[in-house]
Amino acid sequence: MDYLDELKKIVGVEGYVDDAAALEPYLREWRGRYTSDVPIVLLPSSTRQVAQLVSVCAARSIGVIPQGGNTGLVGGSVVHGGRAQVLVNLRRLDRIREVSADGEFMIAEAGCVLAALQEAAEEVDRVLGLSLSAEGSCRIGGNLATDAGGLNVLRYGTARHQVLGLEVVLADGRIWNGLRTLRKNTAGYDLRGLFVGSEGTLGIITAAALRLYPRPSDLATGLVALDSPAEAIPLLGSLRSRLADDLVAYELVTDATLELVLRNIPDTRTPFDDRYKAYALVENASHNPGGARSALEQALEAALGGGLIRDAVIATSGEQRRALWRLRHSISDAQTREGASIKHDISLPIERIPAFMDDCESRIRAMLPDVRFIVFGHVGDGSLHYNLTVPENMDSESFRAKEPELSRMVFDRVHAYGGSFSAEHGVGLLRRPELRRYVDGVEIDLMRRIKQALDPHGILNPGKVL
Amino acid sequence: MDYLDELKKIVGVEGYVDDAAALEPYLREWRGRYTSDVPIVLLPSSTRQVAQLVSVCAARSIGVIPQGGNTGLVGGSVVHGGRAQVLVNLRRLDRIREVSADGEFMIAEAGCVLAALQEAAEEVDRVLGLSLSAEGSCRIGGNLATDAGGLNVLRYGTARHQVLGLEVVLADGRIWNGLRTLRKNTAGYDLRGLFVGSEGTLGIITAAALRLYPRPSDLATGLVALDSPAEAIPLLGSLRSRLADDLVAYELVTDATLELVLRNIPDTRTPFDDRYKAYALVENASHNPGGARSALEQALEAALGGGLIRDAVIATSGEQRRALWRLRHSISDAQTREGASIKHDISLPIERIPAFMDDCESRIRAMLPDVRFIVFGHVGDGSLHYNLTVPENMDSESFRAKEPELSRMVFDRVHAYGGSFSAEHGVGLLRRPELRRYVDGVEIDLMRRIKQALDPHGILNPGKVL
Repeated sequence: MDYLDELKKIVGVEGYVDDAAALEPYLREWRGRYTSDVPIVLLPSSTRQVAQLVSVCAARSIGVIPQGGNTGLVGGSVVHGGRAQVLVNLRRLDRIREVSADGEFMIAEAGCVLAALQEAAEEVDRVLGLSLSAEGSCRIGGNLATDAGGLNVLRYGTARHQVLGLEVVLADGRIWNGLRTLRKNTAGYDLRGLFVGSEGTLGIITAAALRLYPRPSDLATGLVALDSPAEAIPLLGSLRSRLADDLVAYELVTDATLELVLRNIPDTRTPFDDRYKAYALVENASHNPGGARSALEQALEAALGGGLIRDAVIATSGEQRRALWRLRHSISDAQTREGASIKHDISLPIERIPAFMDDCESRIRAMLPDVRFIVFGHVGDGSLHYNLTVPENMDSESFRAKEPELSRMVFDRVHAYGGSFSAEHGVGLLRRPELRRYVDGVEIDLMRRIKQALDPHGILNPGKVL
Repeated sequence: MDYLDELKKIVGVEGYVDDAAALEPYLREWRGRYTSDVPIVLLPSSTRQVAQLVSVCAARSIGVIPQGGNTGLVGGSVVHGGRAQVLVNLRRLDRIREVSADGEFMIAEAGCVLAALQEAAEEVDRVLGLSLSAEGSCRIGGNLATDAGGLNVLRYGTARHQVLGLEVVLADGRIWNGLRTLRKNTAGYDLRGLFVGSEGTLGIITAAALRLYPRPSDLATGLVALDSPAEAIPLLGSLRSRLADDLVAYELVTDATLELVLRNIPDTRTPFDDRYKAYALVENASHNPGGARSALEQALEAALGGGLIRDAVIATSGEQRRALWRLRHSISDAQTREGASIKHDISLPIERIPAFMDDCESRIRAMLPDVRFIVFGHVGDGSLHYNLTVPENMDSESFRAKEPELSRMVFDRVHAYGGSFSAEHGVGLLRRPELRRYVDGVEIDLMRRIKQALDPHGILNPGKVL
């Protein structure tokens, strides 16, 4: 039997698409950087089907590209290389198998949309520690495969830190059932962390046991005006000392970034009378009703007294809160409307961010004086979206031509300050050259050995990461 | 040159011991279960020396047993098997390389005593999230190699969760420098988690970058009287809902366990007029001065009102706090004085603990009616020290003879309830039979592949774990 027929037989008529129009949404990365081609996209509806599909592919040395919500940004689920490949999309594995309020966990299949899991947690008065812009369409399997970050990392950690257990289909089609919910377990090597963040190259995550947390009863959101982006770092320290892990979000927005939003997005406004060099969007949670606001007020008053900040507002209604977050969430959209951008998803040791920003900006300005720095992001966990937007007087093509040297400079500086060229977007195809350049040979050798050990024939997500 | 001479030359005259009397403390596990023999204990003073030692051993296929404070309980750093082996103790790698309050991290060498790191964190008004009974003598390298747990896991997670980065000497003597301090990094596979908990069988951890947390300004400690050990679980849920992660410790002590302490340890007393079936020792932390006590009081009043608890006291002085903790910390000592015990370090899904305890106790009683159940531990994170003490009318030898069948019953029940036969003590030599019995073949195969990939000649800690 032809391998395509064999695969179709496993999943049944509702379990695949193979005509060009139906394939297109699976093959096009949404930012438009990659498109690719496969003869079939398989849509298995159970872990067993995934295992059977991989078994068939393993026997015939067909590459298997796993995919979730297809919201990635680095070419992590597109075709690469010449070998025959199929794409396995996990959206039909979308059952929540168990939610336990007392046990503070849920067991969810890989195809569950992140927002649906957040809602299921809230229904039992618990909260899932993962939140990101794409949460309405990204799927938990992809979040785990890429170790997604997002908005609440400073409080709850990245996707990795939510994982109590995993179910994984291995490169030879066997199923590893590691769906434990234990908080402590020293029975042998911990394999969970290896699959998380390996971008589908070591195994296909089909389900996960995820930690839940007590749900805060109260939330206070504020916007803080600063004298410079660098001031965001001492302010973070000051707020952490007083609010500790109740500080659940801490986002930096520079004034140039705010300007872009105000100019391009209707019905946005700054809550301040004056303009400042930078802003921090902060969110404080509390388990005492009313406690979040008063604690945030006191912490910001102390910061004002200490000269750390210039001004601050705290939202007094849900509407005001949404308006503040809208300033942050509209940035990507506003940026698109301003023309070409060169984007960098970087992370740094938090205390070195001010020095990095000064150093990197002056070097980039020496290369292209009028480039616009659109810098923002989850600075509370040391990550920045460090984006360069085309100068107003320059055409996109000339600007794009400078991408290699500009990005090289940014990443070189990131590396010099002990940072990473990929904070939360992963490696995929896009950042493989950076992996080779900035990660040392011993570490890459270890990664290769592990890939060889778990996927000796290289059938899982060929050409990604390594 | 003889390999012993070659090794001695690397570390110099102060870097080894090789006479019988000096070797003894390194070769005897403190609980007395294991003693072993090597021709030399090496005491390198730098990562480079560790790497050189391993290179020499790799070239000659000599086994290398890494050791920290030698406080383990499962034969993790004793000699096993017939091949030539040396022991490498890391106590001289005891420098704290960096402490950053703003960056909330410290970089410490493997030989640092845990308590010294806790103090260094407190000096900069931060706290390290790891605390355990052996903290005055255990060393951080061993804590990480075994993924140590301890008292604060429900708040901060196990040793694994404290790790931002690692420096590791590999099986061929190369050094992996993964000493990053980043909160987000998706640049390739995450190797950190593999070395943590692998008990020195995949690499020798020589240094680690560890997370620090804001230091709570206030602590409240209480003892709560319960109608049964099972009641500890709904109480935990109730306290978590109100105190969330401010609840930093939650220890169960059954009345039989308390009785043992009161009878054997001078100057111990219960703060209650009556005796109850079980007690929970709870500790609440706050970043608001005075906040810890009032929040704990409110949470306990609500629990009292809801019929979840019978009585409660909160310490009003440091002395009272120490007296409460002394009841908990004296248990092992008290148990030793009562004669032979068969100990089990188990973990369970938290919500299933009551059912497990009922089921397991009735089955064990059917086997040995008068056995004394000394059950206590970090129930807040689902782990229990589930110990069986010799019946008063039975001799130790007859009791010991029953260990295989009694332990088998306990571990079978643990497995049936989705738990682990090793919560925090590891596998070492002692629990290898349980690893083979309770961990499924796919998982063991994955572990073997990884061992083969990272230590193909099997020189690191021979015979442990697998």
